This record gives sequence, structure tokens and C-alpha cells, in this order.
Amino acid sequence: MTTPRLTVLGAGPGDPELLTLKGARVLAEADVVLYDALANRTLLDHARPTALLVPVGKRRGMRSHGQDEINALIVDYARRYGHVVRLKGGDPFVFGRGREEMLYAEAHGLLTDYVPGISSAVAAAGSAGIPVTHRGLSEGFRVITATTASGELSGSIGEAARDTRGTTVILMGLGELPRIVAEFCRHGHAATPAAIIQNGTLPQARLVTGSVAELPARAAAAGIEAPAIIIIGEVVRLATPEKLAELPALYAEVA
Amino acid sequence: MTTPRLTVLGAGPGDPELLTLKGARVLAEADVVLYDALANRTLLDHARPTALLVPVGKRRGMRSHGQDEINALIVDYARRYGHVVRLKGGDPFVFGRGREEMLYAEAHGLLTDYVPGISSAVAAAGSAGIPVTHRGLSEGFRVITATTASGELSGSIGEAARDTRGTTVILMGLGELPRIVAEFCRHGHAATPAAIIQNGTLPQARLVTGSVAELPARAAAAGIEAPAIIIIGEVVRLATPEKLAELPALYAEVA
Repeated sequence: MTTPRLTVLGAGPGDPELLTLKGARVLAEADVVLYDALANRTLLDHARPTALLVPVGKRRGMRSHGQDEINALIVDYARRYGHVVRLKGGDPFVFGRGREEMLYAEAHGLLTDYVPGISSAVAAAGSAGIPVTHRGLSEGFRVITATTASGELSGSIGEAARDTRGTTVILMGLGELPRIVAEFCRHGHAATPAAIIQNGTLPQARLVTGSVAELPARAAAAGIEAPAIIIIGEVVRLATPEKLAELPALYAEVA
Repeated sequence: MTTPRLTVLGAGPGDPELLTLKGARVLAEADVVLYDALANRTLLDHARPTALLVPVGKRRGMRSHGQDEINALIVDYARRYGHVVRLKGGDPFVFGRGREEMLYAEAHGLLTDYVPGISSAVAAAGSAGIPVTHRGLSEGFRVITATTASGELSGSIGEAARDTRGTTVILMGLGELPRIVAEFCRHGHAATPAAIIQNGTLPQARLVTGSVAELPARAAAAGIEAPAIIIIGEVVRLATPEKLAELPALYAEVA
């Protein structure tokens, strides 16, 4: 048996071709793959037929494993089978708790490694023609979530709303959209361009654009659902109409 | 000849295995590859032997092409040969001017596409064990550069220094390190953990950690050079000692 080890691996934003070459190799070397609900299941085709494939995803309304349980599974599987690959949507270190799992594994004697993945924060926006930075429009970007680990509205939302220069990307924020919009409007961003992208980089991707103030009504009218990212900033003006085939009427209102 | 088209393609942070599967496929389909100085040259092995490989990189002190010249080359090569792939370090939309090149190409009748790449902002930090987000330490992160397009110190530096919750990642900032550090110290961050990673994800990667105030002296003592990223925030405490084989003495001072 190989030395007990953990590799936290980023699955990317959704399109299975956005896995890295290293990610494909690591999956092919795995003895066990513990995978999240968010990861595209076709990625598992990179694993050997003999590899143990274990879903441990957390998704609203479905059976889920707690973080403690996942940590214990990693150590247990690694000791029994060798190389555990922990496959997570996006990048394991962008709200993925990847380092937490590594620290737990290291404390229990496992070797650990990290293989980055494409984050939807940049790629889902980009797939709709929206660059997180653009000369003259955005001097940088920040990536935040809507709620803190304890479930409250993150203070980062208010800080981002006061930011005058950058693009804000909010992950896992759709359920808090009204409160996010209220905070941005309170800081003078009612008319700032904004977008929501559902299933970015996948064939079923959907995009809604509008001003910050218009966003909740438009998202509701379009039936936008999670997983989705929210983008607020002038760069949204660069969204490409041809990517919006599904929602031409909404785009026409904005353009 | 194929339809004139441009694909802006992210080469990733340095490790050639961190190219995406899609990136490898697109390179193999290219008629022309216009590549930056920052991209790892072994990536070009994915291109066909018949593909035209053209360096257009901008690097301090070396001959470089202006943005207008690059734009013109893209259109000219696409009209003459078909599919131009514009290979850029990291992600084309993270300070890569990728959308600018697409807009220019679109205005000249080319089809365009964007293939994201792994940004060093997340991956170089992560390769040193530093997660840009971590429960209890960082509720988000921002990615900025030190200078604006016109060469002045970016106002984003000051905004980031006032930020209380997040991780700050500064790309292309090594030359402005003293001014960055002064700004963060002025806002009470003299003792905040910070790191510089040179050549992140490559075998010759180097890491320096310390407090914000200590960083310039330590970087100078270690002879850190560009390309490098600067990370400021509590998450730096999670840097892994075993990644620091080159600089154990510096790490020992910090740990």
C-alpha cells in the first residue's frame, strides 16, 4: 500500500475540460476519491476503475456529511487504501475548507498536497465576457461570500459596498441577494452594473444583467437558481450579448 | 483556412501541468500562438509542429511589443492563418488585458473565445500552504496590483490596507514593496503576517514570511526577485514549513 496521503484537488468551475492536466493525473493515481456535490461527475472518469468513489457533498436539502465526518473519512480511507483525493468544486482554498482538511490530515500523520483549480469567481464571470479586471474600469477584484461561517451577513459585503475601485464577486450569495443589494444601494451603488451567472462555464449557463437595484427582480423573473455567482462593478458592461442567447430580452433592456 | 479567430488562453501560474485540459486542446488546434514572456515555454510543446510560435512578451528590460502592436498582430495573423491563440500567464482576465484584445479582435470581425487559466493569486499562495480564505482567519480575498495603468501607486492599496477582514494578494508589486508596506503600516498592519512568493508552483519557488513591517528587509536579505506575489493577512500563519526548504532560517524566525 502507498503511504497514507491526501491531495485536495480543485475540480474547476463546472466545464470538465477546465480541470488541469495535473488534476487529471492525480485523479488517475487516486486510490479513493471523496467528491463534493458541486464537482462535475464526469471528472470521475479520470479515476481508475478500481478506485473507490465516495460522494460526501454538501448541498442544501440533501443528505450531507459534516466537516468532522469528512475529516475522519479522509484519515480512515488514507490509512486503509493509501492515496485519498479530495475533489472540490472550483479551487480548494477559495471557500473550500481545503486547508482545514489538510491540517487535520497532517495532524494525523498523512502527507498532504494541494492542486489548485480554476475558480468560478474568475472563470464564470469571464465565460460571460465579463473580466474581473479591465483597464479603466476595474483596478482589482475581491471575492467574498454572503454569509460568515456562523450564518450572519458577512461584514465583507459592507466593506465591498464601500469599495470604490474594484469588482466584487460574491460566491454562494443568491439566497442573500436582497440583503446584498440593500447594502450596495445604501452605499450609492444602486445604478452600478451587476450580473448573476448560474452554472457558469456549463452548457446550461444563464446570465442576468442589470443595475444593482434591478437585479433581484430580474433574477426572480428569470428563475435564476444556485449555484450562481454575483458580480458587481463597471466590468459588467463588457458582458457579451452572444453569450446571452437564453435571455435576449433581459439583455436588450440593459444594453 | 479556418475562420479568423482569437482565443485568449490562460497558461496558469508557472507549473506547466497546471494548464487545463481545454488549454492543451486549444493549443493543439492553434495555427498561431502569440505568447507572453511569463508563460512557461514548455507549454508550447502542445502546439502542432506546423503552428507559428511568436513571442510578444512584455518583460522589464527586454524588447517588448506595445499593446497596439499586439492587437494588430492578432488581427493580421488571424486573417492570414486562421486561429490565433493568445497565451498569457495566469488568467487572461486577471490583469492580463485579455478582454481588451478580444474587443479589438471583435471590432475587426474576428470570432473570439476565452479559456481561463489558474491565477497565481490563489495558486502560488496555496502552493506555499497559504489559503486565500480560511474559516476564522479570512472571510474573503482581494487581488490588486501595486500601480495603476498610468504608473501611480494604486488607490486599491490604501483600500486594502483599511480592509479588516480579508486577505490581500498583490500581483506585480515587488518594485513598490516599500510604499505598499508603508501604506499597510499606516493603517495599523505593521504586525500583520505577510509573505512573498517568487516563482510560485515552479521548482525554483521561494518564500519569505514575516510581519508586514519586516517584509522589505527579509525580501532584500533573501534576494527575492520578480515575478513574485505579496500576500498580507492572517492566513499567512498557515504557511507550511516543509515548503520553505530553501529558507529555513527565515521561517524559524517567524514560526
